[in-house]
Amino acid sequence: MTNALALLKEALGDAVTTDAARLASAQVDESGHRSDAPPLAVVEARSIEDVQATMRIASQTRTPVVTRGAGTGLAGGAIGSAGEIVLSTMAMDQVLEINEADLLAVVQPGILNGRLNEILGERGLWFAPDPASKAISSVGGNIATNAGGLLCAKYGVTRDAVLGLKVVLADGRLLTLGHRSVKGVTGFDLTALMVGSEGLLGVIVEATVRIRRAVEGAVATIASFYPGVRDAAAASAAITAAGLQPAIMELIDQPTLNAIDAYVGSSLSTRGTAHLAVQFDGPAAADEARRALEIITELGGDAELTTDRAEAEALLAARRAAHPSLAAMGTTLIEDVSVPRTRLPDMFDAIAEVERKYGLTIPTLAHAGDGNLHPNFIFEGADVPDEIWEAAGEVFQAALRLGGTLTGEHGIGLLKKRWLGHELGADQLELQREIKRVFDPDGILNPGKVF
Amino acid sequence: MTNALALLKEALGDAVTTDAARLASAQVDESGHRSDAPPLAVVEARSIEDVQATMRIASQTRTPVVTRGAGTGLAGGAIGSAGEIVLSTMAMDQVLEINEADLLAVVQPGILNGRLNEILGERGLWFAPDPASKAISSVGGNIATNAGGLLCAKYGVTRDAVLGLKVVLADGRLLTLGHRSVKGVTGFDLTALMVGSEGLLGVIVEATVRIRRAVEGAVATIASFYPGVRDAAAASAAITAAGLQPAIMELIDQPTLNAIDAYVGSSLSTRGTAHLAVQFDGPAAADEARRALEIITELGGDAELTTDRAEAEALLAARRAAHPSLAAMGTTLIEDVSVPRTRLPDMFDAIAEVERKYGLTIPTLAHAGDGNLHPNFIFEGADVPDEIWEAAGEVFQAALRLGGTLTGEHGIGLLKKRWLGHELGADQLELQREIKRVFDPDGILNPGKVF
Repeated sequence: MTNALALLKEALGDAVTTDAARLASAQVDESGHRSDAPPLAVVEARSIEDVQATMRIASQTRTPVVTRGAGTGLAGGAIGSAGEIVLSTMAMDQVLEINEADLLAVVQPGILNGRLNEILGERGLWFAPDPASKAISSVGGNIATNAGGLLCAKYGVTRDAVLGLKVVLADGRLLTLGHRSVKGVTGFDLTALMVGSEGLLGVIVEATVRIRRAVEGAVATIASFYPGVRDAAAASAAITAAGLQPAIMELIDQPTLNAIDAYVGSSLSTRGTAHLAVQFDGPAAADEARRALEIITELGGDAELTTDRAEAEALLAARRAAHPSLAAMGTTLIEDVSVPRTRLPDMFDAIAEVERKYGLTIPTLAHAGDGNLHPNFIFEGADVPDEIWEAAGEVFQAALRLGGTLTGEHGIGLLKKRWLGHELGADQLELQREIKRVFDPDGILNPGKVF
Repeated sequence: MTNALALLKEALGDAVTTDAARLASAQVDESGHRSDAPPLAVVEARSIEDVQATMRIASQTRTPVVTRGAGTGLAGGAIGSAGEIVLSTMAMDQVLEINEADLLAVVQPGILNGRLNEILGERGLWFAPDPASKAISSVGGNIATNAGGLLCAKYGVTRDAVLGLKVVLADGRLLTLGHRSVKGVTGFDLTALMVGSEGLLGVIVEATVRIRRAVEGAVATIASFYPGVRDAAAASAAITAAGLQPAIMELIDQPTLNAIDAYVGSSLSTRGTAHLAVQFDGPAAADEARRALEIITELGGDAELTTDRAEAEALLAARRAAHPSLAAMGTTLIEDVSVPRTRLPDMFDAIAEVERKYGLTIPTLAHAGDGNLHPNFIFEGADVPDEIWEAAGEVFQAALRLGGTLTGEHGIGLLKKRWLGHELGADQLELQREIKRVFDPDGILNPGKVF
């Protein structure tokens, strides 16, 4: 390993750091999980060549490499530990091309999603993947985790927005995958395989992404309160069942409303025990919102509608305040199950059962439009207590029973490894491991993560 | 092989046929290409168990298996030859579930795309992938080739509509991939890897597909004529550049217009040397069409617009008559390159250069909205002459030079194998071969195709 470090410094000079604070910062991500020991070094790659040089040295010395973007992951997928090189692509943060006519952009992996959207926005363009972390998460990280977000039911997940990738393999070779055209079926779809692969198959060093024109016209936003979380879930299901397609549909349960009230001094919880925010965009937005409002009111929701952008922001304020309000209550494990959207009420019931069984309160937010729930487990101290993991495990099993998945958008990383086999089954798990070996025969790419 | 046949008959009885006519029909697809010799047998699987039994016997006896849907492929990907079992999934043609609230359907692979859409249409629902062959092609085949079609720029390709798959592996094991939820990032995305894998990785025996609500309201359709094909391509590019999103945008060149006139007795070619049909749907259809009409007229197009469905069909009649008109001229090799949509004019120039060099006429249709062109090579006799392949090869190389791909939606199959390495490069080609070996270590699934 000393050898690896010496070789890295020789090849990459200043790009290699062993500064204690920098190493420590690479031991954590936004999950709060911290690795046992600092990594060997952090390489701040400035170019594809830097990444290739790093991988060649890692390959030659059999040194593990953890590729890292902005470190906003919630599953421990990009944290470094003893003897590992953390390869940051955050300095590769340029937009290389914006092609308005072909509706594509070529970007380096380190650019922040929010920054890319600022640049695109100046031209009336838009990169649709919108994880809640978009202001602070990198496009490379979004791709490595197939990030979701609030708009997925209408505008798709990250995979749908990636046309092509440049990837450095474990041995330092550079691959170009995909194409610049909308269509293309030459060989297996390795671009799609790479999206969501959590640093296990290669290092994403460039992406050709599909962009859209910004949606024109006013948005129409509804904030609504209900007597119970099942009522809110039923309203969201009824909106979809009526053929309406909101851009955003966010559900907040009672414990989360209480947390928000305590944190920001609001009195949301006096209006109901569940909150549903619904936003429509596009040419039919106002009309769709009026129809949604009727549905909500019929189902007993207490709702207000606005087409004013400033008022809309006020109506969405509860949702935006949810995470900081929960974080103020203690250490938070943000979980991430996904179920078919009609099973949302059942999933809330299952969470309530886990609450009763374990004597816990599990404040839960949901992207109701796509059936993705974030149950939050709150505890004292830095480490997740075993009992919390046990309770979370029961939540995961419930999601699987309902036809869902144990992670909708955060990924497996370190924190969900032990449940992977429950979802995939032994045969698929082995197949996935073999695919990993094809790309990385020496097992140096993010070892110990996912599998 | 006799052993394999005896085992198949013992296990599957009537589902196994060696009828000469049936064997001969499995030697061809819609490309016109015919294999050298009939296959060993055709298995008409009635169930997942039949597929598993077939694969177990094939695995045990090392007998190659060609999975086949409706046989409408255009690249020879599903044709059987000497010693091969052709495994047809066309008898597995049921819709197992339509879930309107979750906007998903579970289907068997043998159902025709058009039939599925009839069934969905009765409930106001819709499966968006729409290859031109949809009336006669199977959903399983659509998935195995990641079929494209006319609506892809707006509504995506087949991959975007597949949530999960059941797949029988080479050794007969059944895998369940993906999920019923909109989101899900557990492990590598093997569902996406399977889409477009042309029968090389497994046998698709069930699919959970995303469905949509039928688009409401009138469609608005424009038919327009231009002095030259570059003008038509420029008009299509200008429509996209103006931020408009047609559902359909189809371009026809002069040789194709001539062929249509000769075949149906029309006089389209007196109105221009290129034709562009544009159709808008959704709530803003009429407004978008008016804006497109202005653009077309400014660019010198001779255009008419209708919002009447019957008149729209009349305007699209030219496009629909194109393939039979060309087929009437001789044997047709329908090619399938794709380029970024702004490179369409350059691609037409490249085709014109190949025409001059080889003394050929290459009638060309294009899905202009997504940059997918179908140059047609017409010749006498059953076999594609070497000179035609040479000319086609130059067309493929031109597409690659323009940032495109040698197949937008038909696949590699048998007919484009020799160009695969040009697009993928040696490193990626080897990686793809290794992935194939992970799924199919004995190489019994569709051997000799793609690679």
